[in-house]
Amino acid sequence: MKILAIYGSSRKEGNSHLLAEKVLDGVNHDSVWLKDYQIMPIEDGRHEAEGFKPVEDDYDEVIERFMEADLVVFVTPLYWYGMSGLMKTFVDRWSQSLREERYSFKELVKGKRGIVIIAGGDKPKLKALPLVQQFSFIMEYMGMEFNGYLIGEGNKPGEVLNDAAAVNTAAEWNKRLK
Amino acid sequence: MKILAIYGSSRKEGNSHLLAEKVLDGVNHDSVWLKDYQIMPIEDGRHEAEGFKPVEDDYDEVIERFMEADLVVFVTPLYWYGMSGLMKTFVDRWSQSLREERYSFKELVKGKRGIVIIAGGDKPKLKALPLVQQFSFIMEYMGMEFNGYLIGEGNKPGEVLNDAAAVNTAAEWNKRLK
Amino acid sequence: MKILAIYGSSRKEGNSHLLAEKVLDGVNHDSVWLKDYQIMPIEDGRHEAEGFKPVEDDYDEVIERFMEADLVVFVTPLYWYGMSGLMKTFVDRWSQSLREERYSFKELVKGKRGIVIIAGGDKPKLKALPLVQQFSFIMEYMGMEFNGYLIGEGNKPGEVLNDAAAVNTAAEWNKRLK
Amino acid sequence: MKILAIYGSSRKEGNSHLLAEKVLDGVNHDSVWLKDYQIMPIEDGRHEAEGFKPVEDDYDEVIERFMEADLVVFVTPLYWYGMSGLMKTFVDRWSQSLREERYSFKELVKGKRGIVIIAGGDKPKLKALPLVQQFSFIMEYMGMEFNGYLIGEGNKPGEVLNDAAAVNTAAEWNKRLK
Repeated sequence: MKILAIYGSSRKEGNSHLLAEKVLDGVNHDSVWLKDYQIMPIEDGRHEAEGFKPVEDDYDEVIERFMEADLVVFVTPLYWYGMSGLMKTFVDRWSQSLREERYSFKELVKGKRGIVIIAGGDKPKLKALPLVQQFSFIMEYMGMEFNGYLIGEGNKPGEVLNDAAAVNTAAEWNKRLK
Repeated sequence: MKILAIYGSSRKEGNSHLLAEKVLDGVNHDSVWLKDYQIMPIEDGRHEAEGFKPVEDDYDEVIERFMEADLVVFVTPLYWYGMSGLMKTFVDRWSQSLREERYSFKELVKGKRGIVIIAGGDKPKLKALPLVQQFSFIMEYMGMEFNGYLIGEGNKPGEVLNDAAAVNTAAEWNKRLK
Repeated sequence: MKILAIYGSSRKEGNSHLLAEKVLDGVNHDSVWLKDYQIMPIEDGRHEAEGFKPVEDDYDEVIERFMEADLVVFVTPLYWYGMSGLMKTFVDRWSQSLREERYSFKELVKGKRGIVIIAGGDKPKLKALPLVQQFSFIMEYMGMEFNGYLIGEGNKPGEVLNDAAAVNTAAEWNKRLK
Repeated sequence: MKILAIYGSSRKEGNSHLLAEKVLDGVNHDSVWLKDYQIMPIEDGRHEAEGFKPVEDDYDEVIERFMEADLVVFVTPLYWYGMSGLMKTFVDRWSQSLREERYSFKELVKGKRGIVIIAGGDKPKLKALPLVQQFSFIMEYMGMEFNGYLIGEGNKPGEVLNDAAAVNTAAEWNKRLK
């Protein structure tokens, strides 16, 4: 099983990263840090005669790795009660992939498994629930299997490691993934 | 009362824009199209010794207009069951403004009124609810008054105008704003 | 089209009732006031050898009218951010109907249309959203078509009639139902 | 610290009960099984001249035990994506307690801690989220501290014990409560 972790954070070693590492420790996987790629906001071409215009950026490289994965781990800090703008901008571009002629995006993504890992500071176990629901709609639309979400509480660097319930669930998932 | 509409769509005349125009028709207001500005994703500097680094982009210009408004109308298409990446990237940057020394962001935003206008295609009246909840958390955090949301259904260009319930509510709001 | 309004309120002329009347004014329909029937809480018999035990109450009478309807209008005050206990107790009993041998509940309910009308006092347009989502899951499970929800704001008797947006949407729906 | 578990299930040894036992194992606490009490649906008397009418049932006995507790554990199966009718009917009656003259309900409940334990079968980790949000609004209204929720997956009797993540979190909470 090919596992890909997609990181939406703007920096390494943040709380969402630390929690994801607990899940992925010793698990064979590949990582994409969206911050290391230039991905442009979508320009909606669905209703243009000429469709979407080609974009000169790194989206293709990332989406190809996404399409190859069997299990995708979406890792994002809770920014303003949603996924990071970096991650949202990436997901928005899927609309372009859905119109792509070089591959059948929907067919390729269907059946993939998805996991969501979120960390944040302001009552995230309640206030990240709309984000969980959003991911659930996204995966449902793409025919992905939503295999679970994990919300860790932590504001200051490293604080998520004090969230025993989150760390335990991470360890539990780690066992299953190994 | 100073009204500012902030558009998150990648193109004009989309369904969210059309619905917003019904609300704002004949109402004195100012508009910002985020697509016309370059706004970089946030680089989280909250835990860096030197704090956030200055960013060379158009964020300052937009946030200043935001801070001047009494009523902010957030207008976004429902992209992947959330606000557009353009709008999310803009909102993410508020974290930087919260640390800004040139102005007191939280004080300035507190008490502003906010309205959210969303249009989308796939059962938006149910599937945009997490986004509404997200905006509610955002405004609550900033001390803004959430004055209402309006969800219009429409996929093809102009289709939202067939959503009689949405158009009626827009007309109702328009009366109140005039 | 046979229309049935099911009222969960403990009293007539409450805000949810008033709003429902705007929707149903002049529309041929039947009404059930749950408060006028004795409906016992479910006793879960799904995992008992003998299954569910027969219950001596009025549930059968109500569920038969429910099964005959093409469009069901669920009308409930927002009690503690959910449907009323009266209505919840009624819905819980559907689990028993799903095991009933005298009729095929799931087949009979599939394809029915459902509308939800809610009125309440404490920011209902935000705080009733979980209830809307709950109804959406309920209808999805039963194969019903969720045709819309209407949330009116009103605490004191009659106050919902001041909620112009809700009253307008009710009028719009009324036109469609006629 | 006085701990009270309130069970909304119609039967003992169900999945929500089993999960709650993992949380409460060896913890000094008191239990109320709502099914063992007769609690009538609320009759809304807020707007009647004479207010709420006295009700001849067991509500007073239960609410007194509730008012004495420091930590309340709400345990409910996920019935139709909400709390059980038994539990909802009980909570609805709080509106009457809010008008009670013999005690100051809001003052007495303020500051209590609350925990929610839910078990259900149909993707409960997603489909119980509206219920979690509802409990969050309830506790916020009453000034209670929402100390966490635990959602276990299980349909057949005992199945929840196979939900390793839920059982682990229960064990974690158990340690904290001891």
